[in-house]
Amino acid sequence: MSGAHLNPAVSLSFCVLGQVQWGRLVPYCLSQLLGAYVASALVYLVYYDAIMDFSGGDLTVYGPNETASIFATYPSEYMTLGRSFLDQVVGTGMLMLCILCLGEKRNTPAPAELIPPIVAVIVLGISMSMSGNCGAAINPARDLGPRLFTLTAGWGTEVFTCYDYWFWVPLVAPPIGGVMGTFMYLIFIEWHLPDPDQPDNDSALSISETIKQPGPTWEKDVELKSSHF
Amino acid sequence: MSGAHLNPAVSLSFCVLGQVQWGRLVPYCLSQLLGAYVASALVYLVYYDAIMDFSGGDLTVYGPNETASIFATYPSEYMTLGRSFLDQVVGTGMLMLCILCLGEKRNTPAPAELIPPIVAVIVLGISMSMSGNCGAAINPARDLGPRLFTLTAGWGTEVFTCYDYWFWVPLVAPPIGGVMGTFMYLIFIEWHLPDPDQPDNDSALSISETIKQPGPTWEKDVELKSSHF
Amino acid sequence: MSGAHLNPAVSLSFCVLGQVQWGRLVPYCLSQLLGAYVASALVYLVYYDAIMDFSGGDLTVYGPNETASIFATYPSEYMTLGRSFLDQVVGTGMLMLCILCLGEKRNTPAPAELIPPIVAVIVLGISMSMSGNCGAAINPARDLGPRLFTLTAGWGTEVFTCYDYWFWVPLVAPPIGGVMGTFMYLIFIEWHLPDPDQPDNDSALSISETIKQPGPTWEKDVELKSSHF
Amino acid sequence: MSGAHLNPAVSLSFCVLGQVQWGRLVPYCLSQLLGAYVASALVYLVYYDAIMDFSGGDLTVYGPNETASIFATYPSEYMTLGRSFLDQVVGTGMLMLCILCLGEKRNTPAPAELIPPIVAVIVLGISMSMSGNCGAAINPARDLGPRLFTLTAGWGTEVFTCYDYWFWVPLVAPPIGGVMGTFMYLIFIEWHLPDPDQPDNDSALSISETIKQPGPTWEKDVELKSSHF
Repeated sequence: MSGAHLNPAVSLSFCVLGQVQWGRLVPYCLSQLLGAYVASALVYLVYYDAIMDFSGGDLTVYGPNETASIFATYPSEYMTLGRSFLDQVVGTGMLMLCILCLGEKRNTPAPAELIPPIVAVIVLGISMSMSGNCGAAINPARDLGPRLFTLTAGWGTEVFTCYDYWFWVPLVAPPIGGVMGTFMYLIFIEWHLPDPDQPDNDSALSISETIKQPGPTWEKDVELKSSHF
Repeated sequence: MSGAHLNPAVSLSFCVLGQVQWGRLVPYCLSQLLGAYVASALVYLVYYDAIMDFSGGDLTVYGPNETASIFATYPSEYMTLGRSFLDQVVGTGMLMLCILCLGEKRNTPAPAELIPPIVAVIVLGISMSMSGNCGAAINPARDLGPRLFTLTAGWGTEVFTCYDYWFWVPLVAPPIGGVMGTFMYLIFIEWHLPDPDQPDNDSALSISETIKQPGPTWEKDVELKSSHF
Repeated sequence: MSGAHLNPAVSLSFCVLGQVQWGRLVPYCLSQLLGAYVASALVYLVYYDAIMDFSGGDLTVYGPNETASIFATYPSEYMTLGRSFLDQVVGTGMLMLCILCLGEKRNTPAPAELIPPIVAVIVLGISMSMSGNCGAAINPARDLGPRLFTLTAGWGTEVFTCYDYWFWVPLVAPPIGGVMGTFMYLIFIEWHLPDPDQPDNDSALSISETIKQPGPTWEKDVELKSSHF
Repeated sequence: MSGAHLNPAVSLSFCVLGQVQWGRLVPYCLSQLLGAYVASALVYLVYYDAIMDFSGGDLTVYGPNETASIFATYPSEYMTLGRSFLDQVVGTGMLMLCILCLGEKRNTPAPAELIPPIVAVIVLGISMSMSGNCGAAINPARDLGPRLFTLTAGWGTEVFTCYDYWFWVPLVAPPIGGVMGTFMYLIFIEWHLPDPDQPDNDSALSISETIKQPGPTWEKDVELKSSHF
């Protein structure tokens, strides 16, 4: 029903933009948290034998046989607190910038049907390039849900207390980063695009404009395109 | 003719949904099994020199030079029976959930021409992420066909008796998982989508609906497409 | 002009199908050979320093510092002659089967604009999975052109005489494989598809049929799109 | 506003083709340089802890713990000056050839909405296959911006003086390569395509031709699509 909102930081940003009602934010976030918790439980069930084989039955947060980072994220040894906060802000800001660009009707938007795989590639790219510092959570629900699961499944309170109570960073930094990315998008891109109601620039005529001038031949074309799937 | 049904678990799920006739299920499954057997024979012919070079001519199921797992799947040493059954149920259920979402006309469906490569990416993703436990068969034909081939090609009856007659798991678990995934899709997604015959929700007007009204309502469809992320 | 024919085995198959004139086959093949030779020369120029650094200035076909396989393909030590011939026949046959399926108007064809990247992925997939045996040339021009270049650039006649004059295998086997793949496509798929001029099967009504219904201007556009590979 | 011009060598080539006004070239290049400098500063901020941990606080251009090549490009030890110049010319020429083919209306053009990801794959492919020699900058702004950043951030003047003042190669070679690639495209492809105003070749009838027949509204749409990269 929500169009696959999976990230509280992204949902908050869309609330700020007025594209999602504020009243829906808390239910969305709780659903996301619940989904992440249930998914962690499923991973634990399917890989229980493998986790026990690897850890020798001792579920820990530190050490060469630690298994907590299968679920929640933890910072690298060399990271300072401020740096890991910045890391999460920048990662989520980049995610939000990319998502907003994809749907901009006045620029060249990505085809609607391809947005899900493109967002998947963006998240994969950010995860691959930015997980070195502190695991690239860039999503409070994806981090807190699994962390709560490990708390209840035998890893103990260390999942919250470790690294000097670091767990709050992937909860607080991503929403800040998402909103900052949204404002950077508005300031540097959105407000420089031509007004869709008064196209005064022929060479930059937006697609959505053209589509609204449907002589009769248009409709046919669209029908073909749309009926091909 | 069948639209490339390659997996008995998927075919069974479509029978349950009423999208494939029950009478076609057995012929489909036998064809899938035959196809997997013939493909295994071709792999064996092309890589005969490499297999003989690697195994030293001794075709075995266990040990560092085993070659049976090139064809059928076998569980990791640490897996218990129930866990490997669960692994196959979850893997096939996820596959079925993804396949059904791709074609849902009342949500944003994937373009029909792109469904084959998208399904290939899904199968690749499940194979890469879930093969650690017991090889990610998630397809009875893909597992039994090659296993029968290795039985007839010199690996002996050990391909069936090994790991305490484990071979029945990838035959029985995937169909159960596929049907469970189908019901989860119906319960959690399908039955919550707006009724296609009585569209009472403008903002969620389905594409298939709009397509049936090909006069001037086109414009709506196009705007719909653009607003679908 | 040719629609990017780069492989003599593929061009020959299209001649057999009657989609390319026989008189064009020899000019196409010579162009393909010339292109592969020139591309090899460019690679040699750009990587001259790297090749000299790696080989110590001694350009050889055998040994740990051999550099000949950068250009042409050579079989693995364990391969027998017949097996490597089969390997090339199967690889090229699979390539041809995939290419013909992509453009089949009476099945779900791939979008014409996406055929180039899809063919690139197919060639990449075959190269990755089948190069273990003997380098996955599956293209006489891609193999003979670079081999002729290495002959003239200092590797000597060993590039032709090595492995008991093996060089003829990637020249002769791919065309045979391509034509065999084409006939397998005709026998197992093409001849089972409904006749586009007499649609007698409602549930399997082909896309090209449906497209012909809307109006006269459509057909031109659609046929154009479908004939673009 | 510029349609995502990120590379001075590409912008220069489009000026030569008359598709971008010459007066815009210098502002574009300065923006590209500024963008690369700011992006380098952001990378430095986010990875400051990791860089300090790896380098031990000693920011150098040479040696096993060098960190300068995170930002700008440097040649491999074995490269001669002329060879690295050729490497950059060939890499940028290939990039320009690919970009121009994608938008050719008289051949099969790539869909306008997919050009951004396709160009990303091309740049990724060239970076992966050609970075062995000297880092595959193929973009003066992407190289000079980060180099200026490292100069100001503590790596010292060695980033410019190292390898015998090599830094000018990725500044001068890419524009030459881009323009050479453009002329090769014009000579070998563009001038051989049928004249769009006088179609005399039925079997090779170009898409843009056919599209102009249906009705007046078509043309706008197609030109719009084609002009979007």
